[in-house]
Order: sequence, then C-alpha cells, then structure tokens
Amino acid sequence: MKLIDSFGPNPRMVRMFMAEKGIELPKEELDLMGGQNREKSYTDRNPGGQMPALELDDGTVIAETTTMCQYLEEKHPTPAILGDTPESRAVSSMWVRRVELGITEHMYNGFRYAEGLGLFKDRLYCIPEAADGLKAKAQDGLKWLDGLLEGNDYIAGANVGLADMILYCCMDFAQGVGQPIDAELKNISAWFQRMNSRPSAEASLHSSCAASGMRG
Amino acid sequence: MKLIDSFGPNPRMVRMFMAEKGIELPKEELDLMGGQNREKSYTDRNPGGQMPALELDDGTVIAETTTMCQYLEEKHPTPAILGDTPESRAVSSMWVRRVELGITEHMYNGFRYAEGLGLFKDRLYCIPEAADGLKAKAQDGLKWLDGLLEGNDYIAGANVGLADMILYCCMDFAQGVGQPIDAELKNISAWFQRMNSRPSAEASLHSSCAASGMRG
Repeated sequence: MKLIDSFGPNPRMVRMFMAEKGIELPKEELDLMGGQNREKSYTDRNPGGQMPALELDDGTVIAETTTMCQYLEEKHPTPAILGDTPESRAVSSMWVRRVELGITEHMYNGFRYAEGLGLFKDRLYCIPEAADGLKAKAQDGLKWLDGLLEGNDYIAGANVGLADMILYCCMDFAQGVGQPIDAELKNISAWFQRMNSRPSAEASLHSSCAASGMRG
Repeated sequence: MKLIDSFGPNPRMVRMFMAEKGIELPKEELDLMGGQNREKSYTDRNPGGQMPALELDDGTVIAETTTMCQYLEEKHPTPAILGDTPESRAVSSMWVRRVELGITEHMYNGFRYAEGLGLFKDRLYCIPEAADGLKAKAQDGLKWLDGLLEGNDYIAGANVGLADMILYCCMDFAQGVGQPIDAELKNISAWFQRMNSRPSAEASLHSSCAASGMRG
C-alpha cells in the first residue's frame, strides 16, 4: 500500500492522522499545483480527481480523506482514534459529518470560488457568486461549534478525534488565504492552539510549505 | 433503540436502508414542517437539529444519516450493504462521500436556499444567491456520474449500496421541487428507474406523502 500524496490541507489531514497513529507508508508525490491530479493517468485510478488517495498492492485505489482514515484504522486498529465500540465509532463519525457538511466544505468551496478561482475554474464547476456566503456560513457553523466546545478539549470527546484533525487542517490553511480565525470565538481559538501544539501538526506539513508560506 | 423520525428525504433514506436490511425499530415521530426538530427538547439531544436520529436505550443519540446506517450495520451485520471486508467497506464509503459532497449536498442546499427558503430561512444560515449555482453544480456532478455508470447497475458495484439510496432519495424528492431528472443522462435515468422499482423505495415513503404529494 502507498499514499498518493501532495501539498494541500486534505493530504495533510491524512498525514496528521497517520502521524497520530504512528503509520508510515511509501509515497507517490503528485504535483497538485501543476494539475497532475487532473490528468488521465490519475483520474483513471481516482475518477474524483482529488488528492490524496491510497493505492493498495492489488491496484485498488481508495480515495476520500475520511474513507482513507477509516481504512487505515481498520488495518491498524491501535491506537484507536475513530472509536473502539459501535457507539464510540458512531459518535466519532457523526462529528466528522457535522464538521464537514456544516463548516469545512463551505470554507474550502468559499476558497475555491474566490482566492482559489484561478487554480480551480478549469478543474471544478465553480460558483463565484456563492463564495462570500459560503465563508459566512462556515463562520456561522464555527460559532455554533464554539458554544458546544465550552468545557471540552476536543470536538467529539475527551481525546483528539478525526473531526478535530479535519477542522484544524482546514482552518490552518484557510487562515492564510483570507479566512482568519475569529478571536471572539474563545473556545475555537483555544482548541485551535491545542491542536496546533500537537507534534502531529508540524509533522504533517508538506515539504513545500516552507517555500510557499502556506499551511498544507 | 428507537428511530426519531419525520417526513423528509433524509429520514426516508434511513428507512430505505432499514427496509433493505429488514430492520424494524420503534419510532418517535417529530413534526418537521412545524419545526419540532428545532425546539430545545430535540436540540438538547441532537445539537445539529436535523432529522432523523437514533436514540439508544442509554440515552445516547446518534444523528447524521450515514453514521446511523453504519451503526445499524454494525449491530445487524447481515445482509451487509456497506461491505464485508475493509476494502469493500472503503469502496462503499468512498462513493457515499463522492455522492454527498459532489451532488446531493448541492441539491439539498439549492432547494433550501430557493424553493425551501420560507421554511429554512429562520432555521439555517441560507445563501439565496448561491441557489442557482448549487443546482447547476449538482447537475454537473450527475453528468460526471452518468459517464461512470455506463455498464454498471449501481454506483459502487454490482449490488445496491448506500450511495445509491442517498442519491435516489435526494433526486426523488428534488424532482418534485424544481430539480427534474435530465432525460439526457441516460445511465442516471435508467439507474433511477432501477432504484424506483425496488420494494424499499415504496416501503420507505412517509405516511404523510400521500397527502402532501411530495416524496420524502
């Protein structure tokens, strides 16, 4: 099995998950900025055309970040990050979906349709007129989560989970491209610093980040 | 365990999954149109405020449709719909995420911000100016999927899967509220009829549908 990897907050999230679990894999590096992930040699393997992905020894390609983490956890059950009972797995999974559908998808699409439009307009169906609204909706979701974080260190329980890594990698990237962290969200801000100080946060940064100044 | 249930395409999707698996559960019915799912007695249990949810005997509430199906599959492993190996579970999960993030979330939000705005404007952060673009983006996603469906009966393999149920319930609802099925998408249209003829499609309709004329 190998990780098909690149710069970007989504590949970083999988690397952060792997760092938290102590998993190392051989990597195939694609040039995301140059669009190598939109070339036929990749989309034949992953028709979604997005990064990252896992390629298994039999050639099966498993894409989609949350799916990849779930697969890695099945193959490497300890330490369990996604839960170790049906109930704790469900709580983890529920928070992942709330964070993605309520916050991070809107942050990412807000970026793709505005600051990222030059890069994405020929890769994805873009909706420039939605960008400001999507960014505002993401902030609305963060405000909701800020209230729920009161008294809690992490989103889905006492320990760091996948929802934390998804949101952290998204916000750390987004704050460099026009979506700063609102200091008035005290619980989110404290949680962000908590995530930022984990060794996996630094260990998961792509080698190109020092040069680009971006966090992905 | 009980199902907290209502009218709507998302609750219907969980009922369709249960029908395919032969699972029956006691139900607590909430008035979605009347906003009972936005009242404190429900949001204290499910802070997402969305329908449906499962309430376990110990009071734990598991929300988010895909999470609920995953939990039900863990408790009732056969017949397996989400896969019976780590690899087949990953393929199922990957397609669920592709369909949700690439198609159905855009269809649902396009509805909420336009035809559904009267109902949703005081419940959710809405982006009316994004509605047309979101609907067009969903069609762009369906066109992409139409090509991939060539020669295949179902989205993620030879058998009906969760991605099929998510997309079917969304499209069946959406076609009644301004997002018709494009007949030029031949593979999608044939797949839709295939889904529509499954006994679970009729069995999962809410009792209020006959009166409302809507499919949810």
